[in-house]
Amino acid sequence: MDYYYGPGRNHLFVPGPVNIPEPVIRAMNRNNEDYRSPAIPAMTKTLLEDVKKIFKTTSGIPFIIPTTGTGAWESALTNTLSPGDRTVSFVIGQFSLLWIDQQQRLGFNVDVVESDWGQGANLDILASKLAEDTAHTIKAVCIVHNETATGVTNNLAKVRKILDDYNHPALFLVDGVSSICALDFRMDEWGVDVALTGSQKALSLPTGMGIVCASPKAIEASKTAKSFRVFFDWKDYLKFYSLGTFWPYTPSIQLLYGLRAALDLLFEEGLENVFARHARLGKATRLAVEAWGLKNCTQKEEWFSDTVTAVVVPPYIDSAEIVRRGWKRYNLSLGLGLNKVAGKVFRIGHLGNLNELQLLGCLAGVEMILKDVGYPVKLGSGVAAACAYLQNNTPLIVSRV
Amino acid sequence: MDYYYGPGRNHLFVPGPVNIPEPVIRAMNRNNEDYRSPAIPAMTKTLLEDVKKIFKTTSGIPFIIPTTGTGAWESALTNTLSPGDRTVSFVIGQFSLLWIDQQQRLGFNVDVVESDWGQGANLDILASKLAEDTAHTIKAVCIVHNETATGVTNNLAKVRKILDDYNHPALFLVDGVSSICALDFRMDEWGVDVALTGSQKALSLPTGMGIVCASPKAIEASKTAKSFRVFFDWKDYLKFYSLGTFWPYTPSIQLLYGLRAALDLLFEEGLENVFARHARLGKATRLAVEAWGLKNCTQKEEWFSDTVTAVVVPPYIDSAEIVRRGWKRYNLSLGLGLNKVAGKVFRIGHLGNLNELQLLGCLAGVEMILKDVGYPVKLGSGVAAACAYLQNNTPLIVSRV
Amino acid sequence: MDYYYGPGRNHLFVPGPVNIPEPVIRAMNRNNEDYRSPAIPAMTKTLLEDVKKIFKTTSGIPFIIPTTGTGAWESALTNTLSPGDRTVSFVIGQFSLLWIDQQQRLGFNVDVVESDWGQGANLDILASKLAEDTAHTIKAVCIVHNETATGVTNNLAKVRKILDDYNHPALFLVDGVSSICALDFRMDEWGVDVALTGSQKALSLPTGMGIVCASPKAIEASKTAKSFRVFFDWKDYLKFYSLGTFWPYTPSIQLLYGLRAALDLLFEEGLENVFARHARLGKATRLAVEAWGLKNCTQKEEWFSDTVTAVVVPPYIDSAEIVRRGWKRYNLSLGLGLNKVAGKVFRIGHLGNLNELQLLGCLAGVEMILKDVGYPVKLGSGVAAACAYLQNNTPLIVSRV
Amino acid sequence: MDYYYGPGRNHLFVPGPVNIPEPVIRAMNRNNEDYRSPAIPAMTKTLLEDVKKIFKTTSGIPFIIPTTGTGAWESALTNTLSPGDRTVSFVIGQFSLLWIDQQQRLGFNVDVVESDWGQGANLDILASKLAEDTAHTIKAVCIVHNETATGVTNNLAKVRKILDDYNHPALFLVDGVSSICALDFRMDEWGVDVALTGSQKALSLPTGMGIVCASPKAIEASKTAKSFRVFFDWKDYLKFYSLGTFWPYTPSIQLLYGLRAALDLLFEEGLENVFARHARLGKATRLAVEAWGLKNCTQKEEWFSDTVTAVVVPPYIDSAEIVRRGWKRYNLSLGLGLNKVAGKVFRIGHLGNLNELQLLGCLAGVEMILKDVGYPVKLGSGVAAACAYLQNNTPLIVSRV
Repeated sequence: MDYYYGPGRNHLFVPGPVNIPEPVIRAMNRNNEDYRSPAIPAMTKTLLEDVKKIFKTTSGIPFIIPTTGTGAWESALTNTLSPGDRTVSFVIGQFSLLWIDQQQRLGFNVDVVESDWGQGANLDILASKLAEDTAHTIKAVCIVHNETATGVTNNLAKVRKILDDYNHPALFLVDGVSSICALDFRMDEWGVDVALTGSQKALSLPTGMGIVCASPKAIEASKTAKSFRVFFDWKDYLKFYSLGTFWPYTPSIQLLYGLRAALDLLFEEGLENVFARHARLGKATRLAVEAWGLKNCTQKEEWFSDTVTAVVVPPYIDSAEIVRRGWKRYNLSLGLGLNKVAGKVFRIGHLGNLNELQLLGCLAGVEMILKDVGYPVKLGSGVAAACAYLQNNTPLIVSRV
Repeated sequence: MDYYYGPGRNHLFVPGPVNIPEPVIRAMNRNNEDYRSPAIPAMTKTLLEDVKKIFKTTSGIPFIIPTTGTGAWESALTNTLSPGDRTVSFVIGQFSLLWIDQQQRLGFNVDVVESDWGQGANLDILASKLAEDTAHTIKAVCIVHNETATGVTNNLAKVRKILDDYNHPALFLVDGVSSICALDFRMDEWGVDVALTGSQKALSLPTGMGIVCASPKAIEASKTAKSFRVFFDWKDYLKFYSLGTFWPYTPSIQLLYGLRAALDLLFEEGLENVFARHARLGKATRLAVEAWGLKNCTQKEEWFSDTVTAVVVPPYIDSAEIVRRGWKRYNLSLGLGLNKVAGKVFRIGHLGNLNELQLLGCLAGVEMILKDVGYPVKLGSGVAAACAYLQNNTPLIVSRV
Repeated sequence: MDYYYGPGRNHLFVPGPVNIPEPVIRAMNRNNEDYRSPAIPAMTKTLLEDVKKIFKTTSGIPFIIPTTGTGAWESALTNTLSPGDRTVSFVIGQFSLLWIDQQQRLGFNVDVVESDWGQGANLDILASKLAEDTAHTIKAVCIVHNETATGVTNNLAKVRKILDDYNHPALFLVDGVSSICALDFRMDEWGVDVALTGSQKALSLPTGMGIVCASPKAIEASKTAKSFRVFFDWKDYLKFYSLGTFWPYTPSIQLLYGLRAALDLLFEEGLENVFARHARLGKATRLAVEAWGLKNCTQKEEWFSDTVTAVVVPPYIDSAEIVRRGWKRYNLSLGLGLNKVAGKVFRIGHLGNLNELQLLGCLAGVEMILKDVGYPVKLGSGVAAACAYLQNNTPLIVSRV
Repeated sequence: MDYYYGPGRNHLFVPGPVNIPEPVIRAMNRNNEDYRSPAIPAMTKTLLEDVKKIFKTTSGIPFIIPTTGTGAWESALTNTLSPGDRTVSFVIGQFSLLWIDQQQRLGFNVDVVESDWGQGANLDILASKLAEDTAHTIKAVCIVHNETATGVTNNLAKVRKILDDYNHPALFLVDGVSSICALDFRMDEWGVDVALTGSQKALSLPTGMGIVCASPKAIEASKTAKSFRVFFDWKDYLKFYSLGTFWPYTPSIQLLYGLRAALDLLFEEGLENVFARHARLGKATRLAVEAWGLKNCTQKEEWFSDTVTAVVVPPYIDSAEIVRRGWKRYNLSLGLGLNKVAGKVFRIGHLGNLNELQLLGCLAGVEMILKDVGYPVKLGSGVAAACAYLQNNTPLIVSRV
């Protein structure tokens, strides 16, 4: 049943799907159940309450949809907008590009703001567009919190400030797929109207849940939004919420129990500790990249991502070859460069249920691969730089103090 | 982690989600993997080939979509039809009703053909509609193969014959959610254009995969269909099929391995043996119902379903109380009556990975519950009737002969 | 990986190994761990405390040994006795016979008290032997609480009374393999000196743990007992208990977590409720046997076992054929007749994590098999008798009231 | 259910129990089964055949005993020797010491040959003892192939040669607990009479199986050996082998399936590749130790173990503190120093299902811990040395070439 089995564990460092904690794998190891019995609603109630915490919202309403991030995008858009509506959206890499493609195919009038891949969203242009838009033709500002293809984190507080500066009523829609549960995310404080993530990212579950959270303003917008939708329609969820049965159609029993376990682990570790762990691992990765003499695809520190690092390889190396060798020789799974940066970058995902020694094993592996493909890396250099930082900054494990 | 645990196993007899075989639970008990490594495409290739077998098609193209049956419906409709298109659709119970609701909300012009709940689709009316429609304004005939709410199986060969009789080019779209892998389904022979099922039904997996299969004619239709769609768009799948990477977005690694195991088990047993097993269990259930002196919700033998039986209770009994007691006292999960038949029927699901003694345990449980709620059942009567049939008709287990 | 797979679940009704509850399977679904870290001792401490509860002892000292029931026997004997020591032991079936064989092979002088298979231990003879033994040459009375081969439960309170009546200092060693956690067991009240069970019986775990509990008097005896022993030596355990590291050699990490989960479930249900459930299922089984017109191997009601029922078949039927057909045709696993009762009885194990509908499915299966092999059973008769009792006597599930 | 949970994976580098491969965890994730059905004997037959391959024997007879390594020792001794028999046995560390302790407590007359801990068995003394023993009073030479406490591998071919040189008929009993399936082991070629291992070592299973393999000469000896034994008696196994039912008492169903999976993985990788992988990881570890400026407890290269490395710390450091910090801060499990080397060494287990990047993560962790406890290690130095070797010597993964 295993395709291409290799001895020892697979070192999974793509930026999703990520490593699932053992207790979560255990929680999902179960038969189906009747989702109309009293048990599943009782559990769902706690899940919906607890899911709000990962968005840092008290007023938002979450929807746990049996879909992926792409479906979560579609849910956010079709419930709040009508065909022809104008959106402002930023291309900074492959995933923001795909979201824009979706917006266009769903019939919205997308005002695309481009940046070089490796830069963050151009917020100056946003500001000027909002300034000009006194008629409020812009119905939504759509932004990816963390662009998974380039390892760029956008500053959402700044986006909110710009919206406020111009007193603009546009909805603020955020893709938090590779950020939520890893980077601090403050839905209420930042006035985000729809935030979304996928289960296979920092929540460290299998793929299969798109989790979407809507502000009261977004819920209000959904009442008049004219985009066709049924599967993704919040209205059906809200109807079943009020009935207390919660599900308009069959959820995955296994993922519900998995989500329960995943949230329990995040809360046991403490969300702020989770963010600090990601910051630590991100920093250690960047120090290793620097020690190898390679460049981070992300051009400025303000955009550095603590969940994924895209590493630029010299022109004489094909980054896809690095990914191939990792898998073939060291059972290491790295992320490919996508689209504009295909062949030029490889990506190290460092999000989800991960710790220091896992990352160091990965970094050691990358060093050997770099040597394999002809880059004159000093073996041990990246690991040394990462260790120097980690040895100073890693706290004792909370439960073991 | 368990809500309302009871000793012993849960007897799961809702018509979905159904019991998962142990080897499938095992196959899914795994960490995430990079879905862009060579392993997942290699496996996906075999899955797409093998999935065709459960539809009995060689020319169809399957799509394994991370969604539920509701999403599979939406995929079937939005890829083949444009807003305003006329469809003919049959209400015979809650699920056919919901599909029609979806068709209407997606903007189609639905020509609804009603039947009493407990009857099959009125095909005479279909014939007259097709006869009148010389202008071919009907773009699709949409029908539920097996209505899960009432236990009614429609005759698809007859639908095809009517379409052929009038030489009508309408697409033939079929919901096979509670039939495929349990009842014989012949996509090519019946000229079905889109057939679909959900993983949590007779495939005996967790919820999370909508499996849709499109005929060449449906694929052709998808090229001009104007319904907005992105997540459900076949085009994206087809693009990745041609690239050999197969997935436009992240699939559930666990469900892929689960599907591999589920198909292996079905093929090991033999699809025809699987159908025979369902026929056997369906017949045994109906014999028990008769022995109890109760009525089958399904009004004629031609519509009897081998995957679910809806049992009509006397007017002085609330069928919901039967379901509640089953769960509270005997760890037995039965299906509620829905909508028009709420309180009037309870349902015994007998589909998926199930065998004779499991069913007999359930029937014995139903007898005790009937007595609990004041129905003067003769204890043992239904089990005796079912046993008499099963003892004569159950073959030796193939692998143990 | 499955040998002779059959569709649907396996109906496991051998008197061990028994069905494992899903939460226990989940708890064991894990990687290895360092058993010298602080985690395993912390867990072991709670296990040793809680294991005493299933023996109903406060003064006993438990040993959780990586072995089977046979090993647990050996641990009980070699730690308390010296070669040549006289024991009184009772043959009432295959397992008591095997224990006596072990006693003889370990060099003890066994005073064997025989009964017909189907009868309990002859306690009158015990009384007369103790009466005669004013010199106290009898060092131990060894008795099987529940003989798994015949379904006979011995009265341990009566044994204690006889020992007390004669004020005899012999150690009281009890095999509780198929009784503890299913039948009420009162180590302290009955003055049992060594009691033991195996994990795969009513604890509903995999095989692999022999759990032995020693009274202070037994611990005292172990200090002078001269039987050679190392692996089974309590002394090594006691040494590691006092060190707080608990394990003289590597335990199974998985079974420890499994035991934790198994105990949690037993305590959640309530031990007295667990006993009541076994009594209920035992009674229902016996009523079915009676309804079939067959005889219980156990000759008097006072010995009826609530964990296993051995059913006598008519002379013209080979009971092994019943077991074979169960497995081949109905995926039902029944127990064979052993030794003197081979071919004459088959056994229904009804211990461990089991509920009413599971048992009723089994009983329906037995009826069909009886018919298969030519016994003129009235189909449904046993199930009807069992249902009549169970419908009156099954309480609501505690957590679902 | 988890005690002291830490984020990310546990890095398990104790020399047992070791990491279990995911496919093996999956194979064991199952309910109990009747071990007297045809399925378990069918599987057992293949297991007994295949287990011989890991001993490299064709004439040996294997016994898969539900016990630990300590029990396997006892099985080897009690089946072949009688109380009072003279054995020659070597103390070179804690585990060889414990085996000798067992031999003494079982009543044998042990001729103990001591070495400094860190040295191999003194084979010169063996030679002289055999030379003197013209009366053949020495009944067995007992030796640990790989001393887990010090990381010393003894040369078994040399032991055989010495026995042959003196034409001595003593049985040759070998503890292969931390060698078999990791180091090349040639039972037939080396004329080993009893070899044994435990499931939780290089087989990479949970604890619970002691696997003992007996040569025809050992089987012959067992017929007259007078040590008391029942649970460990080969005779009972041989009886059930000849009956074709294989098990004298209940085996662990889960471990049998786990063993099947474990052997399949070893054979898929290729035993020689498995040995090469261990040699590679052992060498890399030793290079790291050297780079750190620390000493290997093993005093000469001829004894270097490829399954465990005991690292000597400077006198001002307590090695137990290293182990503690590893667990508390980095989720790293290292082995403690035992007995004579307690506080002086810590141990890195590098056996079982492990690969290069796992080891490098561990080595990076050890470096940080060394710094934590005040040893002036150059961070990255050990990893660099190990990488330099591994990058040159790691082959492509067989299945992925």
